[in-house]
Amino acid sequence: MSENKKLVAIIMGSKSDEDIMKGAEDIFKEFGIKYEKIISSAHRMPEKTSKFAKNLKADGFEVVIAGAGKAAHLPGVIASYTTLPVIGVPIKTDDLGGLDSLLSIVQMPAGVPVATVAINGAKNAAILAIQILSLKYLEINKKFEEYKSGLAN
Amino acid sequence: MSENKKLVAIIMGSKSDEDIMKGAEDIFKEFGIKYEKIISSAHRMPEKTSKFAKNLKADGFEVVIAGAGKAAHLPGVIASYTTLPVIGVPIKTDDLGGLDSLLSIVQMPAGVPVATVAINGAKNAAILAIQILSLKYLEINKKFEEYKSGLAN
Amino acid sequence: MSENKKLVAIIMGSKSDEDIMKGAEDIFKEFGIKYEKIISSAHRMPEKTSKFAKNLKADGFEVVIAGAGKAAHLPGVIASYTTLPVIGVPIKTDDLGGLDSLLSIVQMPAGVPVATVAINGAKNAAILAIQILSLKYLEINKKFEEYKSGLAN
Amino acid sequence: MSENKKLVAIIMGSKSDEDIMKGAEDIFKEFGIKYEKIISSAHRMPEKTSKFAKNLKADGFEVVIAGAGKAAHLPGVIASYTTLPVIGVPIKTDDLGGLDSLLSIVQMPAGVPVATVAINGAKNAAILAIQILSLKYLEINKKFEEYKSGLAN
Amino acid sequence: MSENKKLVAIIMGSKSDEDIMKGAEDIFKEFGIKYEKIISSAHRMPEKTSKFAKNLKADGFEVVIAGAGKAAHLPGVIASYTTLPVIGVPIKTDDLGGLDSLLSIVQMPAGVPVATVAINGAKNAAILAIQILSLKYLEINKKFEEYKSGLAN
Amino acid sequence: MSENKKLVAIIMGSKSDEDIMKGAEDIFKEFGIKYEKIISSAHRMPEKTSKFAKNLKADGFEVVIAGAGKAAHLPGVIASYTTLPVIGVPIKTDDLGGLDSLLSIVQMPAGVPVATVAINGAKNAAILAIQILSLKYLEINKKFEEYKSGLAN
Amino acid sequence: MSENKKLVAIIMGSKSDEDIMKGAEDIFKEFGIKYEKIISSAHRMPEKTSKFAKNLKADGFEVVIAGAGKAAHLPGVIASYTTLPVIGVPIKTDDLGGLDSLLSIVQMPAGVPVATVAINGAKNAAILAIQILSLKYLEINKKFEEYKSGLAN
Amino acid sequence: MSENKKLVAIIMGSKSDEDIMKGAEDIFKEFGIKYEKIISSAHRMPEKTSKFAKNLKADGFEVVIAGAGKAAHLPGVIASYTTLPVIGVPIKTDDLGGLDSLLSIVQMPAGVPVATVAINGAKNAAILAIQILSLKYLEINKKFEEYKSGLAN
Repeated sequence: MSENKKLVAIIMGSKSDEDIMKGAEDIFKEFGIKYEKIISSAHRMPEKTSKFAKNLKADGFEVVIAGAGKAAHLPGVIASYTTLPVIGVPIKTDDLGGLDSLLSIVQMPAGVPVATVAINGAKNAAILAIQILSLKYLEINKKFEEYKSGLAN
Repeated sequence: MSENKKLVAIIMGSKSDEDIMKGAEDIFKEFGIKYEKIISSAHRMPEKTSKFAKNLKADGFEVVIAGAGKAAHLPGVIASYTTLPVIGVPIKTDDLGGLDSLLSIVQMPAGVPVATVAINGAKNAAILAIQILSLKYLEINKKFEEYKSGLAN
Repeated sequence: MSENKKLVAIIMGSKSDEDIMKGAEDIFKEFGIKYEKIISSAHRMPEKTSKFAKNLKADGFEVVIAGAGKAAHLPGVIASYTTLPVIGVPIKTDDLGGLDSLLSIVQMPAGVPVATVAINGAKNAAILAIQILSLKYLEINKKFEEYKSGLAN
Repeated sequence: MSENKKLVAIIMGSKSDEDIMKGAEDIFKEFGIKYEKIISSAHRMPEKTSKFAKNLKADGFEVVIAGAGKAAHLPGVIASYTTLPVIGVPIKTDDLGGLDSLLSIVQMPAGVPVATVAINGAKNAAILAIQILSLKYLEINKKFEEYKSGLAN
Repeated sequence: MSENKKLVAIIMGSKSDEDIMKGAEDIFKEFGIKYEKIISSAHRMPEKTSKFAKNLKADGFEVVIAGAGKAAHLPGVIASYTTLPVIGVPIKTDDLGGLDSLLSIVQMPAGVPVATVAINGAKNAAILAIQILSLKYLEINKKFEEYKSGLAN
Repeated sequence: MSENKKLVAIIMGSKSDEDIMKGAEDIFKEFGIKYEKIISSAHRMPEKTSKFAKNLKADGFEVVIAGAGKAAHLPGVIASYTTLPVIGVPIKTDDLGGLDSLLSIVQMPAGVPVATVAINGAKNAAILAIQILSLKYLEINKKFEEYKSGLAN
Repeated sequence: MSENKKLVAIIMGSKSDEDIMKGAEDIFKEFGIKYEKIISSAHRMPEKTSKFAKNLKADGFEVVIAGAGKAAHLPGVIASYTTLPVIGVPIKTDDLGGLDSLLSIVQMPAGVPVATVAINGAKNAAILAIQILSLKYLEINKKFEEYKSGLAN
Repeated sequence: MSENKKLVAIIMGSKSDEDIMKGAEDIFKEFGIKYEKIISSAHRMPEKTSKFAKNLKADGFEVVIAGAGKAAHLPGVIASYTTLPVIGVPIKTDDLGGLDSLLSIVQMPAGVPVATVAINGAKNAAILAIQILSLKYLEINKKFEEYKSGLAN
């Protein structure tokens, strides 16, 4: 059953990203999906981050959401170490509005994709994770079908 | 078994996108994953496109890849009609290099995400689709683990 | 007579666009032109939006104004379903200033144009609608000629 | 009858824009709509351009298409002198890809809109002109409804 | 003598540009150079603007400063009608930061240059005007040499 | 008499800029205005460049044209050392199309303006120089009035 | 010993840059590295700036940090006069967010590099200076190894 | 002595970057500085890359040059694992001209800088490395002083 384990890891590079990434947490709470939140900078804590990334699958996670700003390498670094699908959230920046974060996340080289959502799109990252989990978990799929119908009304 | 049905729909807005989107087809062939290729413009053929999008799940598809250029609405339009995860491929444009395609695909509003990959990143779209399918299909997962190991060597 | 029916449909993707789109309403009130305001997201409510779009002409509308932000597909989606001229208003965004909205609206593919005005240019969208209606309705044309003269003084 | 007079003026700033603007001419020929083509630079020939613009309506034109590149003032200059709807075509530039042309045309101030289409979108400019003329001329409307149906097949 | 007549015309498209353009006025006051300030929109008041532009030389002006924002045609329109050097000041915009104003002013076609300064650079526009006037007026040149020395200390 | 001395210095940072800057030379030849062409990099030859810049006025030059690409400091460096008006020509770049050159030249700080023309706009730089010289030299002014009239025909 | 002399020169073009550049000072204080702070505009005070730059090495400095905004020539001008490594800090701008500063600093021509850090990245400029000094000064290297370990925890 | 060991590691993410990075090799050969060239993708070979990065200092390298394109994480990943100074070379891209590479490299978060040079600026990366090595190695410093003098002539 999908309800008994943490299916999603939400990772962000800095505590300052928490407000934005909360948008994803809210969606998972609404859907009753368990997740783990980790703060680990790809650049300041590369060993911790890579170790965490390598163990993601063995730890039972099925989808990863990674948010980062500026030269936003975190989603790509996670993706380089895991076979799980990684969803990237570009965080808006004060100077360039998040165009830097967006390009740093979405323009990944052949072989290692990151599923990128809109700038500050943490909520949509969670919805995308739910769409992915819906393929396997019928109870999640059922809730998402209801959510989708609800959007239209 | 994942081998007996078409799991992925590859849709593009114009015949001129075929060369780029072939990158996705090549990956699926390499992995022995069946797919269907459809050319249907979101803007010129909205009825055909929306009908197709609405039936994607009933038709047995599990992931959708949509490639489009310029005001690239196709991935978002598909995503508005289906609960399946939609992967968007921004096609490079002659004038703005694909920045227009990228922003038109990635900046989706809350509620309806598109999993965006790099400009002309059709190959990575297929790899992302495989990562998603790997959660459910062990035989695909096995092949992808091998592919991932192969990248490193 | 142009005064007895609603000639213009003003559609926007989200309630948060109302403040900007009010610029168009103000102009129509100044000119005594009736309009209908509709809020319907292209992505969250595709069925409602496409049904509305398909009926625009039968419902007696002659020009459509559509405002949207980010991956701003609404004007293009409307244009795909109607033969009426569609005027698009790119809404300014917090992160990219509206460059995303602008490119998503203006870069339409061959066959389905959207008449795009400036970022947050709802007032000009209404003026453009009035210029279009002036070709057919002499009383609107008369008022617009006066308005134009007034600008110069 | 719409067939007996020139309804559309196609104006461009330079002979070098002719190849792009031919896209509009082709559409008008396909629809049997008469047009006049004028080459007149807003900057090098301001007197000729403004005189031409002021007479557009008296000369019987109903819609204007203006194409220009770089600091593309031509559509806005025409719009400043006429009450007719003006459609602007940003011409692609060698250095900035046409982003300069696009912003110079679309970002018009309140009071004087230009209906902007895609970079190099001369074909769509003609289609937009036809949509506008369709409101008044039933025979054009009929042809356009057929064209629209044809796109979908 | 340069002190007895108005040498510089400062023109701007809108009253809202006055705060920025005051930077130029302050410099001229500091140098004791007479100027005339005119508000005249290129788009809303084309007749007034072109008439003014055509008379600039006959009216005794020697340099023109024109400030404008968005699709900032004013400097180019002035330049199209006068043989005097025209200095353009791109006004910062809320949405695109003034990149639109800058490109609309600086990317002038061959034959009709506008001497463009920085976004909101009204002060520098005045200094450039003074450098130009210094070629002819020794007393201005003397003051400017002092100003230049002063900068370095 | 303006014909007997070199009034304009054309300086460029690299021999590779010669083809573009020739556009300015052609105009000066057409107008019979003498100029001197210098190649001196602001970055590789700062002593030579600053010495040259400091002597420009004493050497009899009245206007300077400086062309440079990428981090295009040459026009600003010249302007920092001379009281003469400096016209900057941003050279198109292979990677960013000249946006880098343009911003590096036009965004000068308060106190030291550079009169910036379009990307690769060497021809217009010469015309601007001629407009400036026309204030002082009647024979140049006369030729320029003729040139301006010629543009319109 | 590295502790007895000023190893780093921190130079900025304007007093308004002090708040940002303080980020570098804080790091040097934390590491006990002496520095000198100089305010000298490349454009307003070229003689002072070039003299200072030429003497940097003789004055005992080993690394230079230069911060500047807009057409940010200061780091490049310093680099043109010294053989010392120059680290450039692009200062965020009100209009273009610092993209102008970044391109003006990083796009240096062949032969004269500037080691560019992030927009407003004064803290990182100091860390980079420390990494460079670590190659030569063992006591700095030791502190930096500790700092690096500290980041990870 | 600096001549007997490899002081610089040149690392790039893909064999396709070799042509650009050769610019750095040429400079090192000219200066007689030994280097090692490594091809190792940050994303496809994260284990190899991180292991290599962690050993850089122990292996005797003193400066690292890393070139990468698109979502160019390689320089930042190297910098996260080593205390050596890392110089980043953004590789030009077909779609966005290298703006993506540049922002992905230069916009590093506080604590982990990358010394970024111009797009495709491999030659300058080598010169910067030589400036850094010159602080410690007198024989390199001597050659560089000669090189610098040579530039000016």
